[in-house]
Amino acid sequence: MSDILEIIKRRRSIRKFTAEPVSQEQIQALLEAAMAAPSASNRRPWEFVVINDEKRLEALRARLPFGRYNAPLAIVVCGDMRRAYPAPGRDFWICDCSAAMQNILLAATGMGLGSVWVGIYPIGLLVRAVSSLVNLPEHVIPLGVAYVGHPAETKPPRTQYDASRVHWQEFAPRAPRRRKPWWPFGKGRSKGEGTA
Amino acid sequence: MSDILEIIKRRRSIRKFTAEPVSQEQIQALLEAAMAAPSASNRRPWEFVVINDEKRLEALRARLPFGRYNAPLAIVVCGDMRRAYPAPGRDFWICDCSAAMQNILLAATGMGLGSVWVGIYPIGLLVRAVSSLVNLPEHVIPLGVAYVGHPAETKPPRTQYDASRVHWQEFAPRAPRRRKPWWPFGKGRSKGEGTA
Repeated sequence: MSDILEIIKRRRSIRKFTAEPVSQEQIQALLEAAMAAPSASNRRPWEFVVINDEKRLEALRARLPFGRYNAPLAIVVCGDMRRAYPAPGRDFWICDCSAAMQNILLAATGMGLGSVWVGIYPIGLLVRAVSSLVNLPEHVIPLGVAYVGHPAETKPPRTQYDASRVHWQEFAPRAPRRRKPWWPFGKGRSKGEGTA
Repeated sequence: MSDILEIIKRRRSIRKFTAEPVSQEQIQALLEAAMAAPSASNRRPWEFVVINDEKRLEALRARLPFGRYNAPLAIVVCGDMRRAYPAPGRDFWICDCSAAMQNILLAATGMGLGSVWVGIYPIGLLVRAVSSLVNLPEHVIPLGVAYVGHPAETKPPRTQYDASRVHWQEFAPRAPRRRKPWWPFGKGRSKGEGTA
């Protein structure tokens, strides 16, 4: 077993950062990780806008009510609809770009950096705000923003493993599902309330 | 720098597997990795159907024209619409479940296993085929299937890094975009084709 499991659990949403910049080598490594993600039919429908200019970061924060974090680096992960899978499979771009995003977060964790994924798509207001800021053409949609920097807060590793989300061979157990009656005092309440 | 970058590049789509089963400990580790993924507002809108029964795997393969791989294990990653973010942000479930899926693939790679992500949602035909096979209720949507097993093929590590997908501070360069004329011989073709 490798330490990948440990890194996966160590990846926590970090929202406070020091002023230390992320180096060019680290940015390059993050982008290589992103573009190592799988994609439907290997279409790689992604584009990445790297923001490390403080003025533009400030403008980005101003547009993201739930993404005002002081990271020195933001990577906007975008989907290019001209490269995306055609019609009935178009939304595969969301999967592809999400896999690229998750790779960025894990690569950051592995390099000792902190990161947080701020969701943009499918919130129209946020899509328009980010698109206009970074000058996206019509066919390019921002999926989300990865803020990355040196962490100024620590969180313990964790999985949120929940056995009740795991099903074997099929979803519902074969046994008939018995619901608890919502009215715990027998049939009292329905008395006289004929439903026929 | 940790070996996470190496594992991210080593994760390739593996479609041929030996008969050796994936152990219970390995399955547990894959699910812990999956549920360590981030999700919008930490809603964890996921459910996992683990299939390692050969008959049911056979039935799954029969329903997936582009997913007939001989892995001894399939994990169907599903989104639960009752747990998903409400209306305008509903599609965040695709991001959340994709991050969980990517964690499964990377965890598998780290454990020396091979894996491949077979996309299901948003292809209606596949969604219905898988839902009926594993008995999903209406509100649970299969996003994709991770086939996992001991690899019977090897592929070299790679990133598909492409510098043309990287943009700095904003998408389009400030310089005006000059298009090559599609007709390379001057204005010849438009002569006499008045557009006024």
